Amino acid sequence: MIKRIGIIGLGKVGEATVNSLRKYSSLIKKRTSLKIEIGGLCDKRKQKSRIAKKYGLFFTTNPFKLINDPKIDIIVELIGGIEPARQFIELALKNKKDVVTANKALLAEFGNKIFSLADRKKRVIGFEASVCGAVPLIKSISEGLVACEIKNIFGILNGTTNYILSKMSKERIDFSLALKEAKKKGFAEKNPSLDIEGIDTLHKLCILSYLCFGFWPNLKKIYTEGISKISLLDIIYAQELNYSVKLLAIAKKEGKFLDLRIHPTLVSQEHPLSEVGGSYNAVFLDTLPAGKLLFYGKGAGGEPTSSAIISDIVNLSTFERKSFREKERVFLKNINNVRLRYYIRFMAQDRPGVLSKISKILASYNISIASVTQKERKRGRIVPIIMLTHDAKEESIRKAIFKIDRLDVIKKPSFIIRIEDL
Amino acid sequence: MIKRIGIIGLGKVGEATVNSLRKYSSLIKKRTSLKIEIGGLCDKRKQKSRIAKKYGLFFTTNPFKLINDPKIDIIVELIGGIEPARQFIELALKNKKDVVTANKALLAEFGNKIFSLADRKKRVIGFEASVCGAVPLIKSISEGLVACEIKNIFGILNGTTNYILSKMSKERIDFSLALKEAKKKGFAEKNPSLDIEGIDTLHKLCILSYLCFGFWPNLKKIYTEGISKISLLDIIYAQELNYSVKLLAIAKKEGKFLDLRIHPTLVSQEHPLSEVGGSYNAVFLDTLPAGKLLFYGKGAGGEPTSSAIISDIVNLSTFERKSFREKERVFLKNINNVRLRYYIRFMAQDRPGVLSKISKILASYNISIASVTQKERKRGRIVPIIMLTHDAKEESIRKAIFKIDRLDVIKKPSFIIRIEDL
Repeated sequence: MIKRIGIIGLGKVGEATVNSLRKYSSLIKKRTSLKIEIGGLCDKRKQKSRIAKKYGLFFTTNPFKLINDPKIDIIVELIGGIEPARQFIELALKNKKDVVTANKALLAEFGNKIFSLADRKKRVIGFEASVCGAVPLIKSISEGLVACEIKNIFGILNGTTNYILSKMSKERIDFSLALKEAKKKGFAEKNPSLDIEGIDTLHKLCILSYLCFGFWPNLKKIYTEGISKISLLDIIYAQELNYSVKLLAIAKKEGKFLDLRIHPTLVSQEHPLSEVGGSYNAVFLDTLPAGKLLFYGKGAGGEPTSSAIISDIVNLSTFERKSFREKERVFLKNINNVRLRYYIRFMAQDRPGVLSKISKILASYNISIASVTQKERKRGRIVPIIMLTHDAKEESIRKAIFKIDRLDVIKKPSFIIRIEDL
Repeated sequence: MIKRIGIIGLGKVGEATVNSLRKYSSLIKKRTSLKIEIGGLCDKRKQKSRIAKKYGLFFTTNPFKLINDPKIDIIVELIGGIEPARQFIELALKNKKDVVTANKALLAEFGNKIFSLADRKKRVIGFEASVCGAVPLIKSISEGLVACEIKNIFGILNGTTNYILSKMSKERIDFSLALKEAKKKGFAEKNPSLDIEGIDTLHKLCILSYLCFGFWPNLKKIYTEGISKISLLDIIYAQELNYSVKLLAIAKKEGKFLDLRIHPTLVSQEHPLSEVGGSYNAVFLDTLPAGKLLFYGKGAGGEPTSSAIISDIVNLSTFERKSFREKERVFLKNINNVRLRYYIRFMAQDRPGVLSKISKILASYNISIASVTQKERKRGRIVPIIMLTHDAKEESIRKAIFKIDRLDVIKKPSFIIRIEDL
């Protein structure tokens, strides 16, 4: 069988995909009897024609030349962002082409519409590359765990933030220095806020929510907290308590409610997720009947991502069309109703009676304290007090901290990190 | 679509598969529009009819009633062992039925013939459950990594041995006590030698060799060393050197040569494989272009394995038939030609000149020493001497140790553990 593809977008991933297709085409053919032909490459930047020239391929700056080419079977969209990617994909589907995309932002926002259109047109969207790059996670969940109920998901889905947190923790440097390093090494973009503030993780969590629960959440309603406020202090204190700080995407199915959140999280150092270092991604799933599973690999980068894109191209071509995702009526759980354990750092004046004032307020909100450590002793100065709580309701924690922060002995806003017992 | 299956073998996995099929059938139907019907259950033990009775299913002690039933599309073979499983599977294929099996021993020995027969009959063998139980590893490799060259595989493929090694290491107990515990907890069989001596791991490595390299090795030619000789002493010394001891299945592709081995291995404590505890399985893959990947989950147990079996049933039914594995001409590398770093424990009399005698012999075989620790000092008594070598040839190590063990100062056979730098 021969399939002809058109690739739109020749950034790092696009270029690597062209290279990998060339490099591994004979391997793919031996394995699948599928021949993938590149019908054309497109990028709005004219200088990208060098990639086409290298292999004697057709190049255009006009994407519609590929999208409207009746000889092309599959459009591979690798430009990212919402528009015009959305327009290109929708037109490709209308033109009866299958689509492969790595565009998590687009799927998170318009996945519902795009997948419905694909269903109506009896076309398939391959999106393996959109979550966890090289890791065959989409396939594993939708096909390998087809008989499984997914109960909980805990994912390290963003390499940039994981690199920064790992760096802070290993080298004991603060956030801004680690971010600078990440930029230097190419692990963070010039404007890194999409990564740092958890937005990229949020996009990927939306896709996992669809995949695992058949539910496209409203992005704006998902609690999303990035890592820019994590201080080295907190990382060190967490280590002393045998925890690592990880930015986790969390999904917990509780009956008809779905608890979706993104925030820095304390993870026990005994859990394999805590060992996921550098720019790697990992997803930990708690399922029935398959039990606990972990998938780990490169979440970004041209070469690794090209593997996922090519596997989508092959799988679209050799398998029957199917819709693997059940649609279910679930409701987003409000974070105020979540019950967790909490790490709280108070910045208080070192004065007799401080602890009693704080703990009185906590008690009035039914929050019970598991441990307290006062890290330094400097009579009259501001010192950190670290508390771990037992299970408490988020709403109570927020209200209590609001009150505590208005005490005269509290000199800076208190800082919480949520704890997940995986 | 409706598919009708017959299940032969109602042990732990067979029973769990029936239960999971019942429990998750509506979920599977929602996701795939496939209805799986159980056409009949078979076990030679009559008392197993209680499982059929529970759900009002047909039960027989005669497997041929299922294998020859024209209304059954798929035979699920869960009796294990070579015969009569082989006979049942071959007849099922000849009868134009697809087959799902968890039988690693059979596939390792006769996979070549069985897969060829399936190809000729245009039938498919699902064998997801044969390696790493619940982990969708077979699917991930054959479909998710379809564009990838697999360079190295390092796998913890046997839950029993991993449980024992983890237990020894955590609780500082010796092998025989840990084995007793494993038996008590149901993690080891009454006759555990298939697990302990690495044979089960060997079977799974053969299947991975087929899957990743299109090569069915001759079992007898693969170096296989179990864990029964691992002493608590070695585990403690390894820990002090920041290593964990794991029973690894190893495959390295080096041009036309394939280096396949199973043996206890020192793994750096910084590597995620070293954190795989208890009865979990994990496979670490080094690939191009996808990079490094880790898959982790339950390798055995009724419920987890049932997930893999059902995913095979669904995938056989909804996808096109395909043969994903290229056939390649490769040659097994003899372990004598392998180059590794080694941990060596000598048991020597504590006498002046011992170290010089040992190191002289090592030097004569071109083995250079990276570190030496003499663990105790008891003049005239037998004490352990721990050496780590730089890269050395296995053959040289063996010859050197043969010579060293004949020195009059060496009082017990020396013990080596190979080191892999993952």
